[in-house]
Amino acid sequence: MKIIIVGATGTLGKKVSDAFAKKHEVIRVGNTKGDIQVDITNEDSIRAMFEKAGSFDALISTSGKGPFAPIKQMTGEVFKSGLLDKLLGQVNLVLIGQHYINKGGSFTLTSGILADQPVAAGAALSAVNGGLNSFAIAAAPELENGIRINAVSPNVVEDSPAYFDSFPGEIPVTMDKVVKAYEKSTLGIITGQIIKVY
Amino acid sequence: MKIIIVGATGTLGKKVSDAFAKKHEVIRVGNTKGDIQVDITNEDSIRAMFEKAGSFDALISTSGKGPFAPIKQMTGEVFKSGLLDKLLGQVNLVLIGQHYINKGGSFTLTSGILADQPVAAGAALSAVNGGLNSFAIAAAPELENGIRINAVSPNVVEDSPAYFDSFPGEIPVTMDKVVKAYEKSTLGIITGQIIKVY
Repeated sequence: MKIIIVGATGTLGKKVSDAFAKKHEVIRVGNTKGDIQVDITNEDSIRAMFEKAGSFDALISTSGKGPFAPIKQMTGEVFKSGLLDKLLGQVNLVLIGQHYINKGGSFTLTSGILADQPVAAGAALSAVNGGLNSFAIAAAPELENGIRINAVSPNVVEDSPAYFDSFPGEIPVTMDKVVKAYEKSTLGIITGQIIKVY
Repeated sequence: MKIIIVGATGTLGKKVSDAFAKKHEVIRVGNTKGDIQVDITNEDSIRAMFEKAGSFDALISTSGKGPFAPIKQMTGEVFKSGLLDKLLGQVNLVLIGQHYINKGGSFTLTSGILADQPVAAGAALSAVNGGLNSFAIAAAPELENGIRINAVSPNVVEDSPAYFDSFPGEIPVTMDKVVKAYEKSTLGIITGQIIKVY
């Protein structure tokens, strides 16, 4: 299987890429590093990435940024930056990628626990993650040619200790467990699912 | 209680406004009609609305547009229009309004059934509604001075027959039932809740 992994040079993406590379052809896509570079906030850049990558069987996105800011200080511009990056950026990987992906292929996006379990200063990311989950549910029945889509929604992960204090009470999940969620989506048969890793 | 209703001149907003006006002071806000006009996609316009309205105890939003488009034809620009209008527009009513609302006040936003029950061509609105629900959950614990926030998530309503065919299998809910959801949020004590009317 030929798999494009967008965000492959990040904390999570690297582990996911290494795991899939054992048995599959992986195209590692980063913002400034990797086999191909992409700016997911730019539709032309996304199109150029798909043109370079050629036909593929699955796309996994572990990419997208969103702001942390207390609600009292949050501005519309800060909130919007998350909507246009982690949410719209990943959606555009699907909207554009649906015209490049092979029949029977799959898209796997990354949302996160904040969709239903908020933390301080996380309201923008909560909205982003909730939007991504609902998009996966809604896009699945409309995609043609047997193409599937799911969202992996991880808790804070063991390899990101800088975030531990922002998620009080959460037991960071192992990278192995999160990687398995991407395998379930990509190598399994489910579609329109939110795969919660928490 | 002094209640600002944004979207008061719409199908849903009119019924909600009429119901609250029986016992409360209602400021009806529309896009081009009503006591005050606002463009919720424009932060300056939102600020001007709050300056005109003066201090208030509750804000109800039944406003915001989102696009219907089949996923195959959906573009990033079309998708973005929904994010910036129904989602970010309502979020900005809260981000800006928190600095104007009276202690113990409440915000009630409107999402919709598509957040978890998709229909054809509704993926963008699903993302918008899912984002709004998660925002309400996340913003609630952070709002200060006893200010509350909830999202009302209605099914297709009886007064919008033009949408019936887009929601196969759904029994349109009565306007009375939807109005009650806004009363539950505004006059009750709950916060951080998604009040599903379906």
